[in-house]
Parts: sequence; structure tokens; C-alpha cells
Amino acid sequence: MKVELKETEQLVDLERNGYRIIQDRERFCFGMDAVLLSGFAKVKKGERVLDLGTGTGIIPILLEAKTEGGYFAGLEIQPESADMARRSVALNHLSQKIEIVEGDIKEASEIFGGAAFHVITTNPPYMTENHGLKNPKDAKAVARHEVLCTLDDVLRESAKVLMPQGRFYMIHRPRRLVEILTLMRQYQIEPKRIQMVHPFADKEANMVLIEGRKGGGAMMKVMEPLIVYRETGVYTDKIDELYRF
Amino acid sequence: MKVELKETEQLVDLERNGYRIIQDRERFCFGMDAVLLSGFAKVKKGERVLDLGTGTGIIPILLEAKTEGGYFAGLEIQPESADMARRSVALNHLSQKIEIVEGDIKEASEIFGGAAFHVITTNPPYMTENHGLKNPKDAKAVARHEVLCTLDDVLRESAKVLMPQGRFYMIHRPRRLVEILTLMRQYQIEPKRIQMVHPFADKEANMVLIEGRKGGGAMMKVMEPLIVYRETGVYTDKIDELYRF
Repeated sequence: MKVELKETEQLVDLERNGYRIIQDRERFCFGMDAVLLSGFAKVKKGERVLDLGTGTGIIPILLEAKTEGGYFAGLEIQPESADMARRSVALNHLSQKIEIVEGDIKEASEIFGGAAFHVITTNPPYMTENHGLKNPKDAKAVARHEVLCTLDDVLRESAKVLMPQGRFYMIHRPRRLVEILTLMRQYQIEPKRIQMVHPFADKEANMVLIEGRKGGGAMMKVMEPLIVYRETGVYTDKIDELYRF
Repeated sequence: MKVELKETEQLVDLERNGYRIIQDRERFCFGMDAVLLSGFAKVKKGERVLDLGTGTGIIPILLEAKTEGGYFAGLEIQPESADMARRSVALNHLSQKIEIVEGDIKEASEIFGGAAFHVITTNPPYMTENHGLKNPKDAKAVARHEVLCTLDDVLRESAKVLMPQGRFYMIHRPRRLVEILTLMRQYQIEPKRIQMVHPFADKEANMVLIEGRKGGGAMMKVMEPLIVYRETGVYTDKIDELYRF
């Protein structure tokens, strides 16, 4: 398929199903967090999946490759990102299975209706500190900082659009874990499984993967730690595997 | 010093300062959790420390050996355990620095008064399921199950007896982490640092160490994972170190 790329755009090979994705060097590029989240999330055959704040569309595209999910939606508020994600979907001939919707996370339940999905994935903005931002409308700022939506918005809307016993998967920062778990319980998305991600085996966690279940009972597992690097610049086998499939 | 041991009691060498501790084979024996907690807790010079539910007195005795704390109290509701702990304190000539108090965790703030300690340590009962207990007054049952006090009791009383900015150290089970963090925040003992303990590097966590700060700000660190065994029966260097000092 012939691809029309804008000047600052590049094509990244996902090394999976021959899929490629468009990203913009001047906008937010997908990182390891998207790969980790798509490895952590479980999607069963035929399930409907919504990715909140999909950016380049990387998570629906990876999940389509990795799982037998039936339908994937990606919600994205920034028109340029939504357009880019839509072109990536078309490029990989996935328009029948993946839909990119331009819209606001805060209105997800109005856009999609209640109890509409089996699974939600989200890699939301991590940072709460917005006052220091020079340009809060900048695409990178919107992806990283809680400029347009907060964690509360993400969980409130997730609780609405998830079916009973539906699963919620998020990657976030350990420093906000107390707030995350408290809010999840408040919105009755009970935390069921977490996995800490450490850059090295002897370092603090810098990411955390979380699975919740809408209306689930209280009982959480902490998985084995996920270590990223065996030594500087060398991935552990686990991370290698995630990138390979 | 001549030691009077009851028939079912034994003397355990702590391999530290020449200290020994009395424990009763038919009661609850101290385990790795006490060693882990006494390695995780930070006690500064001259500080006053309270151990809630001290059992054999192992935690105050280990902390006296490891730190420069000024005064250690151990609160224990079971008379036989309190007596045994008191004899261990005397045996190690520590009666000037460690006091074993017989009493109920639910009344800790009445016993010791408000804002009386810089540090609290606790290795409380882990299990909520009490209905299946054959003998809920059995010493082991009281130590393991929430028969005589709940996590809520522990945190409520801790919040009262801790000074402002005082530190709270607990070892507990990951499966109850959501409840733990939620209750800590509720009682304004803000979670600041957690460390997951995994039996092996590729297994789920089976213990979690938690540091909170009375009136602290919201911001938590997840430390490097603590792995217990390198291979079956062989401790990792970290655990070896903890046992050595």
C-alpha cells in the first residue's frame, strides 16, 4: 500500500505480522510502555476492546496482532494523532477490526454507551504537575501531563463503558500507586493483578502494570518483577520476548 | 545468665550481639518476616520505637541490636507470650532499653498515650478468615488470624501513638495491599515506600514491606524486589546479609 507521510512523520516496523505504524518525530512517539501494556493485557477471542487515549494507535494495532479480539476501538482527542492512527490502521488493512474515534476520554461513555466493552486498555498521562508547562496544548504535553484528562476521569469513564466483570489494563507510575488503587476501588474496578517494572534488578520500579475487574472481589496478586535490562543496553529475555511477539 | 526454660521452650541464637531468644515450639515461632521487617525499618539514634503484637519480642530485640534507637516497647496481648518475651529481654540484659507490655493493640493509645513514638513496627495477623478456626484462642491462631485485632485497629492506634512525621513499618501479604494502602491513607499514615518479597525471582510476591509516614505527602517509591532464594534451599546474598546483620 502506498503511504502518504508528512514531512516529520516516519514509518516504524512493528516486526509483527508485517505491521507498520506511522509516528511523528515532533509529536509523542510510542515507547516501551505500549509494548509492555500490550503484553500484559489479556484479550479473549471475539472480545471488544477500547483503548483510552490511543495516540498513534499502537496498542490496538499490537493487540490485534497478538490476540483473537473481535473489535478494537481507540479513542483519541488530538485530531492530528487520530488522523495519523487512522492512516496506520488503513496501512495495515485493519479498518474492519480497528476503529479510531476522535473524542474526549471524559465523554467516553456518551460516545460508546454503557457496558459496551469487555476490555479497556490505557496508557494515560502520568504527570499531575501542569503549572510548569510552557505550552500545555503541545501534543507531547497532552500525552504526558494531565492537561485534558485526569486519572479520575479515566477510571470513572472506564467503570461506565466496561461490562460487568470486564477487565481494565493500565500502565502507570509507581509513585501514584496509592491514588490509583484507591480510585479503582472507589469506581468498583477492583485491582486484581499488578506487576512492577524495574529498569534493573536492583533498582526501584519506574512503571507498574495493573489489571482490574469491574465488580470483582477484593484479592490482588503481585506478579514476579519485570526487569528490563540485564546490563546496560542489553534487554532481559522477558523483554526480548515481548518485542519479538 | 542462668535461664529457666519451660518444657516446650527452646533457646534460639540470633547470631547477633550474642543475643538469644526464647521461643515455644507449641506456640508461634518467629520467622523470616520478623527478620525482613527489622532489616527494612529505619530507626535513628535515640528514637522511641513501639512494636505492636510483639510475640516473642524478636523485633525489638533485633532492632536494639541493629540500630541506635533509645527505647523499645513491645505490646503483646497473650500473657504467656509477654512473659516469654520479658524473659528473653532479661536474658540479654536489655531490660533498661526494652519494655514488654501486656495489653491489647486496640487500646495502645490509652496504654502509651498519644504521639508517644517516633517509629512503629508491626507484623500483624495476616488472615481475615476466622470462621474456619477450630480453636480461635490458640496462640498460633491469634498470631496469624485477625481474631483479636484487625488491620483497621492496627492502623487507627498507630496513627494515634505516632508523633507527627513518625514512621510506620509493617510486613503483610500482597493480596491485601489495596486494603492496606487505602486504610493507611484514611488514617493519614501516608505510604512512602514498599518492597515486594518474592520467594524466587520468577514467582509472585508472598510478602510486602511497607513504610508509611504520619501526615506525609502523597508520593510512594517501590524499591527493588527482594528475592529470597537463588535456588531451592539457597538464600540470595541480600537475605544472607539480613541474617548476618
